[in-house]
Order: sequence, then C-alpha cells, then structure tokens
Amino acid sequence: MDLRTLEKYLHDHIPLSQAMGVEVVEASVNEVTLSAPLAPNINHRETVFGGSASAVAILAAWALLYTRLEQEGISSRVVIQRNTMDYVRPIVGKFTATSEIHDPVKWEKFLKVLKRKSRARISVGATLYYNGEKVGVLEGDFVALGAQTTE
Amino acid sequence: MDLRTLEKYLHDHIPLSQAMGVEVVEASVNEVTLSAPLAPNINHRETVFGGSASAVAILAAWALLYTRLEQEGISSRVVIQRNTMDYVRPIVGKFTATSEIHDPVKWEKFLKVLKRKSRARISVGATLYYNGEKVGVLEGDFVALGAQTTE
Repeated sequence: MDLRTLEKYLHDHIPLSQAMGVEVVEASVNEVTLSAPLAPNINHRETVFGGSASAVAILAAWALLYTRLEQEGISSRVVIQRNTMDYVRPIVGKFTATSEIHDPVKWEKFLKVLKRKSRARISVGATLYYNGEKVGVLEGDFVALGAQTTE
Repeated sequence: MDLRTLEKYLHDHIPLSQAMGVEVVEASVNEVTLSAPLAPNINHRETVFGGSASAVAILAAWALLYTRLEQEGISSRVVIQRNTMDYVRPIVGKFTATSEIHDPVKWEKFLKVLKRKSRARISVGATLYYNGEKVGVLEGDFVALGAQTTE
C-alpha cells in the first residue's frame, strides 16, 4: 500500500493519529512501521507519555491487519479486544512502532475462519524503537467482523 | 486536589490530554475520574479509538497516584511499566475513566517501601464507563522513583 494513502486514511479517520504526529514509514503486507515525534507526545518527565506509546503501537498493529486484508480484497471491521503493553525504557525522542506477522500459517487460519464464519480473532504485536533500541512491546488481540469481498 | 489545578497540570505537561479533550471530573485521594469526548478520539468505525481509551485510562491511574503522593507531601517520579487493557464494548460517545485505590494496606506498604528504598511498585486500575455501563478495564503497574518530601 502507498505510504501516503495509508497515512491519509489514518489522519482522516483516526484524528488522534494526526494529533500525535504519526507518519507511515513502511507499509507492506509483511510490515507496517509508523513514527511519532516527541513534542505532541511528551509527558511531565519530558519523555513519551505511556498512553501515546501504547496508542501508536496499537495503531501500527491495526494498520498491518488493515493493509493485509485490503491486499486480500476483503473489507472487514477490525477492532481491538485486549492488549498488554510493556514500557521497556523511557523514550526521549522520535520513535517508531513496527508491526509484523511472521507466521503464514496463523494468517491463513485467520483468513479461513473469517471467510467461513465472518468473525475471526488474531493476535498481532508491535515493537517500539528509539534510536535502534527496543523501548516498548505491545501484544494485541484483534477481532475481524464481516468479510465482504471488495474485488 | 482542585479539579482545575489537576486539569491544567495534565494539559500543560501531557499535551495529548488536551488533544483528547480530557477534563477532570473528580480528584480526591480515593478517586480520580477523567472524561473525554468522542470527536477527537473517534476511529474509522465512529467509536472511540482503542489507543485513546487506553491513554485516558492510563492517565486516570497515573493522576490518582500523583494526587495521593501530593497529599502525602511526597514528590516522586511515577512511571508506567506495564499494563493490560480490555476493551469490553465499543464506546460511542463521551466516556469517563475512573481510578480508585480501595486497599489501604497496599497503599501503606507502597509508601513505606518508597520512603525506605526511594523506589516502589504499585498496581493501579482504571475502569471506563459510557452511559453508566462498563466499557473498558485497565490494569497498570507503576513504579515511583525518588521520595522527596515537599513540605
């Protein structure tokens, strides 16, 4: 997916992504990476507010599912059901959130259930990096509802 | 603590709280309740973006710790280490996040360790409500660092 198309979709539909200064750095079926600057996400300690770190990570995981389903020609509502977030280190500047799905078997199973039952669950993680170092880890449980073919 | 004082502190030090339209509804040593409107927190489904729900819940839990420590006359850096978040139902309008500490023993133990070791951990939750119904639950693990007496 074109980076600017995804970025515009996020900014238009999830205005908090614009308020957080989120940019799309990479968007493929294998990986979505978003970035966000410190200033709009700063906290009282002049590091990134945990709520921002968590929101950008959720957005990266959601955007990867959205991108993959688009590529499969499936229009489905994807919502988050649960997540855990580990704040590994304080983040003192512009950071990124990368979401990847490594397991093709898990993805195929998810698609199969979604097509058959119009409802399927999948776990997708995202990792936050600052300056090449891992600074946060999200694990998210998402559910996709409905599976209309868009092609 | 005065509601407007806490609200100004949040808006001044954590600008995302202002972008999310967060208002302080209640602020005592027993409970902090924040509210946030739908518009700045909306997603592609016209419900509250999970990242916003999670960020407002984190803010409520953090603000309760901040308020209680202020009341104890202790200046300490409080940072989040880990959280889980359950998105119980879609949120379709202005919602609130309430954080409470019910267990006085847990609080006293936390204070004792903080004063002795200048570092202590505590778990604090927050519950999201929309229209009187529970719509989300956060469990957060926080660490307080340093324990300077402000009085």
